[in-house]
Amino acid sequence: MPTDSPPLKDGDLLAAVDLGSNSFHMVVARYVLGQLRIVDRIKETVRLAEGLDGRGGLDPAVMPRALDCLARFGQRLRTIPPRRVRAIATNTVRQLANPQAFLMPAETALGHGIEVVAGREEARLIYLGVAHGNPPEPGKRRLVMDIGGGSTEFIIGEGLDAIERESLQMGCIATTRRFFADGKLTRKRWKEARTEITAEFQQFASAYRQRGWHDAMGSSGTIKEICDISVKMKLTKVSITDASLSVIREKLLEFETLDAIRLPGLSAERRPIIAGGLLVLDAAFTELGIERMYVSDHAMREGVLYDLIGRDREADPREDSIRALCDRYGVDAAQAARVEATALSLFDQAEAAWNLDADNRRQLAWAARIHEIGLAIAHSQYHQHGAYLVEHSDIAGFSRTEQQTLAALVRNQRRGFHLPSFDKLPDRLVANVLRCALLLRLAVLMHRSHDSDPLPVVELDVDGDELLLRLPRRWLEGHPLTRLDLEGEREQLAEIGRRLVLKAI
Amino acid sequence: MPTDSPPLKDGDLLAAVDLGSNSFHMVVARYVLGQLRIVDRIKETVRLAEGLDGRGGLDPAVMPRALDCLARFGQRLRTIPPRRVRAIATNTVRQLANPQAFLMPAETALGHGIEVVAGREEARLIYLGVAHGNPPEPGKRRLVMDIGGGSTEFIIGEGLDAIERESLQMGCIATTRRFFADGKLTRKRWKEARTEITAEFQQFASAYRQRGWHDAMGSSGTIKEICDISVKMKLTKVSITDASLSVIREKLLEFETLDAIRLPGLSAERRPIIAGGLLVLDAAFTELGIERMYVSDHAMREGVLYDLIGRDREADPREDSIRALCDRYGVDAAQAARVEATALSLFDQAEAAWNLDADNRRQLAWAARIHEIGLAIAHSQYHQHGAYLVEHSDIAGFSRTEQQTLAALVRNQRRGFHLPSFDKLPDRLVANVLRCALLLRLAVLMHRSHDSDPLPVVELDVDGDELLLRLPRRWLEGHPLTRLDLEGEREQLAEIGRRLVLKAI
Repeated sequence: MPTDSPPLKDGDLLAAVDLGSNSFHMVVARYVLGQLRIVDRIKETVRLAEGLDGRGGLDPAVMPRALDCLARFGQRLRTIPPRRVRAIATNTVRQLANPQAFLMPAETALGHGIEVVAGREEARLIYLGVAHGNPPEPGKRRLVMDIGGGSTEFIIGEGLDAIERESLQMGCIATTRRFFADGKLTRKRWKEARTEITAEFQQFASAYRQRGWHDAMGSSGTIKEICDISVKMKLTKVSITDASLSVIREKLLEFETLDAIRLPGLSAERRPIIAGGLLVLDAAFTELGIERMYVSDHAMREGVLYDLIGRDREADPREDSIRALCDRYGVDAAQAARVEATALSLFDQAEAAWNLDADNRRQLAWAARIHEIGLAIAHSQYHQHGAYLVEHSDIAGFSRTEQQTLAALVRNQRRGFHLPSFDKLPDRLVANVLRCALLLRLAVLMHRSHDSDPLPVVELDVDGDELLLRLPRRWLEGHPLTRLDLEGEREQLAEIGRRLVLKAI
Repeated sequence: MPTDSPPLKDGDLLAAVDLGSNSFHMVVARYVLGQLRIVDRIKETVRLAEGLDGRGGLDPAVMPRALDCLARFGQRLRTIPPRRVRAIATNTVRQLANPQAFLMPAETALGHGIEVVAGREEARLIYLGVAHGNPPEPGKRRLVMDIGGGSTEFIIGEGLDAIERESLQMGCIATTRRFFADGKLTRKRWKEARTEITAEFQQFASAYRQRGWHDAMGSSGTIKEICDISVKMKLTKVSITDASLSVIREKLLEFETLDAIRLPGLSAERRPIIAGGLLVLDAAFTELGIERMYVSDHAMREGVLYDLIGRDREADPREDSIRALCDRYGVDAAQAARVEATALSLFDQAEAAWNLDADNRRQLAWAARIHEIGLAIAHSQYHQHGAYLVEHSDIAGFSRTEQQTLAALVRNQRRGFHLPSFDKLPDRLVANVLRCALLLRLAVLMHRSHDSDPLPVVELDVDGDELLLRLPRRWLEGHPLTRLDLEGEREQLAEIGRRLVLKAI
């Protein structure tokens, strides 16, 4: 495993950056005796979601505050090895029509790649963070809820595993803008808003209630601050209850505008967006039948750190997800293993000349394992079906960028090149992912007969756009079909300006 | 079940029309004592595949011979009830860039709708025909091979069930055109062609050999005539063997042009396309290790007839396929059943005014059962994922048109209307499928909470583009979310020029 980075050791630093819709967070931790010790936290209220124009555009006025914040985070990150840093963007960036226009300058400012994660992956990371911070009772289920700026996540989990994950497009900023855009607060409008919000719960509330849980826990700013209000108002000691929430709501509805709201424990910063947050929490208590909710200091960013450790420790959740995909779609495991072995052998020969890295190697291995999942849909165009499944499935542990990378590899495993698959990737990744696709294609081609006859040693030399493949002459003579396929591959590569040279040795 | 047609009874006539790439066939049968007695067969050598220009276009010169033939078939069909007739188009029509341009005049000439089936569904029907004509030994597997004009099918089956189904784009016309376009025949070219043909077997030959079979059987003109040649040359008594095939091949290669070929038992009509057919059969014997092949008089058209009987007798293979889809994608069966019951109750109220038929009712029921399969991929946009699965999966028993109908229903079960889904359907079906989509949407909406609370009686009156829905006032008052959803639905319908009127009674 020449490209794999050295394992995590005592004293190493790790960092997670969370580009949320309301605020950006960075948390830096030191790995000590198998645990994380948080050594630094930075939070800046960027309100990225305020810049959304509803058609996928971003108000240019918001950019400088986001980039300035990321530049400050970037300075702090400089001493941490890049492989120990993970930066994640959530709902607001998911909603951009052209996320790259935001991500490119953002990555430059931060000095690190930024991954966009889907709502349910965000939910998984939140649960992971909360469960590490406040371990649930063994064998008992827990409900975790996180109200962000743009979306709200609901998870039922047990131990460290999220069982049910939901993400609704309703955060405190989005909801406040949706129902109280003019800044006025009336009881009638609140009631109408509650009905609309409640409708969103229909799709999962019944399943969640059936599943049930032992305790409920909330995370992130909105819920934390509502808990503070409850405590400051002496309604509860450490939690939010159904009753305390009613009192806070009635108190809130005494104000006629958002600006006028004053509640004990409510910060000035939270004031303009508390109405939307309270609306969502109030609906959740009623629709899910929550009686009491405790608050966790941990949230997604801590989940990202624990996920980083897991990835390092061979407890990578992505490995489980790839296995689950293979099971669901009944992959021929022996064939997948043959293709993986050949692909990785080619990788190791091309790695240095092509500047491939450990991420590329992992992605290539995963793509090889799942390259045939599309067969479960139909044989014809199975590479296309497989890519559809990889791109659209909710796959735990993977960011969108990672899913699009895998989808591009699966899509381009055979037949003509489909270059638009690569267009979805950040520019910085394209060249290497395309190179991995070339390696996967060769591996798939060499094993096209799906038999277990061992391959001879396949020697590969790469140099820029040229691939020189050496195969034993006698083997080639006995395998005219593979030779024919390699000739076809040479033509395919020529179409995209690559050169495949075949040498019999 | 008001729309269901009367069951098949003794003496009823059935017919199958097969628009093959080489010839069009019609077979008429009488249903006697639970069996089929063939009462009429017509075959015309239309050579539709000759008209393919390689870019999905069809030579206009071919149209008149196809339409004239279909008009003759149509005359014979006039006395048979339309629901007992099934007309099926295969490979050549699959390859047309604009199949409707051919299908519309063809359906007019025939006086009956024509369905396009995918290659693997064609394979299933072939196996069904052959297995009924020559039942395999109980508990033993059989290989069936059918060389058509445009494609060749390979099936391994047991009893009446096809276990493995493959369809390769290489029929006798296509293969002859590909390798012997100039009419010349040389040993060198034969060898090159064999290598290329053999390559196509790589993807499945190893799996087929592993599966194994007890006997091999061929169907359709090419294989029948090669068997005749073998018998006439006194090489075998009733079959084709590996050895007899070699002799025939060597004999064939003595001729220098296709026109010159003369073999005992070879008809003049078959002469121009025998080289391609023999090439495919020769490759199959070698790659699959076939030692002897018997010939069946039955083929796809008989399979279509038996399939029609099965559909009538509640042994509809489509029911099994829908169940299999639900299992694979873990559908919530209780929810699906609730939506189906409501959808069918709405259907029965709208049927007369909207001229809906028994096919529409079945399609609506199936769509209701599978409407949530996309959830297995992801919650977000699940209606879109479900439609992708339905459209692209290899679903036994369904024609392409039927799959596109189901996909359109699943795609349009919620959210904004996606009218391009309907564009893929033949014009004659669009209006009613769209109406069924409106009914499915209402049923999905009414059950959105996924709970088992019974619905009140939902009264529906339809009149052209207007739907009048009556619901008990008290129930509506207790279900503000459904009321809100119905208001949203009214707006969606207005977008496509339909009117939803809601009355509380």
